Amino acid sequence: MAENGYDDLEKQKLLLQQHEEKHFTSSEIIRDIIIGVSDGLTVPFALAAGLSGANVTSSIILIAGIAEVAAGAISMGLGGYLAAKSEADHYMRELKREQEEIISVPDIEAAECGEILAEYGVEPHEYEPVVNALRRNPQHWLKFMMKFELGLEKLDPMRALQSALTIAISYIIGGLIPLSPYMIFPVAKDAVIASILITILALLIFGFVKGHFTGEQPFKSAIQTAFIGAIASAAAYSIAKVFRV
Amino acid sequence: MAENGYDDLEKQKLLLQQHEEKHFTSSEIIRDIIIGVSDGLTVPFALAAGLSGANVTSSIILIAGIAEVAAGAISMGLGGYLAAKSEADHYMRELKREQEEIISVPDIEAAECGEILAEYGVEPHEYEPVVNALRRNPQHWLKFMMKFELGLEKLDPMRALQSALTIAISYIIGGLIPLSPYMIFPVAKDAVIASILITILALLIFGFVKGHFTGEQPFKSAIQTAFIGAIASAAAYSIAKVFRV
Repeated sequence: MAENGYDDLEKQKLLLQQHEEKHFTSSEIIRDIIIGVSDGLTVPFALAAGLSGANVTSSIILIAGIAEVAAGAISMGLGGYLAAKSEADHYMRELKREQEEIISVPDIEAAECGEILAEYGVEPHEYEPVVNALRRNPQHWLKFMMKFELGLEKLDPMRALQSALTIAISYIIGGLIPLSPYMIFPVAKDAVIASILITILALLIFGFVKGHFTGEQPFKSAIQTAFIGAIASAAAYSIAKVFRV
Repeated sequence: MAENGYDDLEKQKLLLQQHEEKHFTSSEIIRDIIIGVSDGLTVPFALAAGLSGANVTSSIILIAGIAEVAAGAISMGLGGYLAAKSEADHYMRELKREQEEIISVPDIEAAECGEILAEYGVEPHEYEPVVNALRRNPQHWLKFMMKFELGLEKLDPMRALQSALTIAISYIIGGLIPLSPYMIFPVAKDAVIASILITILALLIFGFVKGHFTGEQPFKSAIQTAFIGAIASAAAYSIAKVFRV
């Protein structure tokens, strides 16, 4: 098996170009939209349903819902931004540390490099040329250690901001769906029924689309997503009933 | 530089054992606690402060807050569990696909393997022995492709459940801190002041501890965390004021 590997490198490269692998790599923006809409549909929905169980008027439910959507969007958005920024800072700190190690203890770093490949059953005489190639170019060596030793990849700082805005806007859009009936029906009892119907429908559609993008079975994903919303709102409703005024 | 690399492999290995790198790797449980407490402190706090801006009684604020905590904990917990489970399913699907490719188009997969190392400036004659070593052991080869081509690592299914419970419990604990004054003071105006004071204090302490664990500057992290809470609650308060009954 090992012998026929590189008889014709050019042919291999050609094959490689033709053969485009269709592994699913979820776009990060889609992931952010999913996080935002999913939480936005569930939590304000459950809060509104819960409050309707405590004999509260539609207008107070609406205020509570909108206040929650605002707080949730800011917390998720700003929180997401700072988390991404802190991840980027973490990368830079580790990069600097690894850089210093390559300069101050190159033999140890080279041995670590070999250890990484040895984990995959590669013998010292087989990985030595690769380790030497990396030592030839410290920039490549550094990148190799960051990815293969630490599993870290460079983050785009603009992504942090984009991610924060995407999550926040998605949360607001998701959150306004269950709240919209409370804007129309002044009696909470009527509004809650309309809210349950449109939100369960929205959760099913959203779960289906989400399943399509994440590579899960769309129907299973639809049921699961609606199930979380149902459980959360049932719990909020029961608790509010217990504590009601 | 490249010549002195492997004169004495045993010496290198000894050095490697002595030199334990102190790169920070955030424990996943700590990350889950941070996610839960951070959101738990912020959102119910902002919701309660917001409602107090709409002339709502302490008891309704408390019901809304508790309903939100229940809904948020279930949404985050169940959502986290299903996300982790879907990630584990994704890994298994990709593993199967990669396995099939190794069997059906081994030369293409071997060329891809070479391409990965070529990105780091390693020449074909240098990486060929490594590629051949991987082809010798398909299990190692598969693991190598999963990690270095797709960047995927095997997930423990029990981790999904543990993660869900950790996030949910942390959210509840975080959420009860800003709500506790509403249990004590019947007048919302008094409760909101007490809630702001203890929550800002809790956010500062929590941000400080979080900074310590994530490798950020603890004081910077404390200020940032309290800032998110303040912005979220100010927004919720302003919106509730506008919509108030």
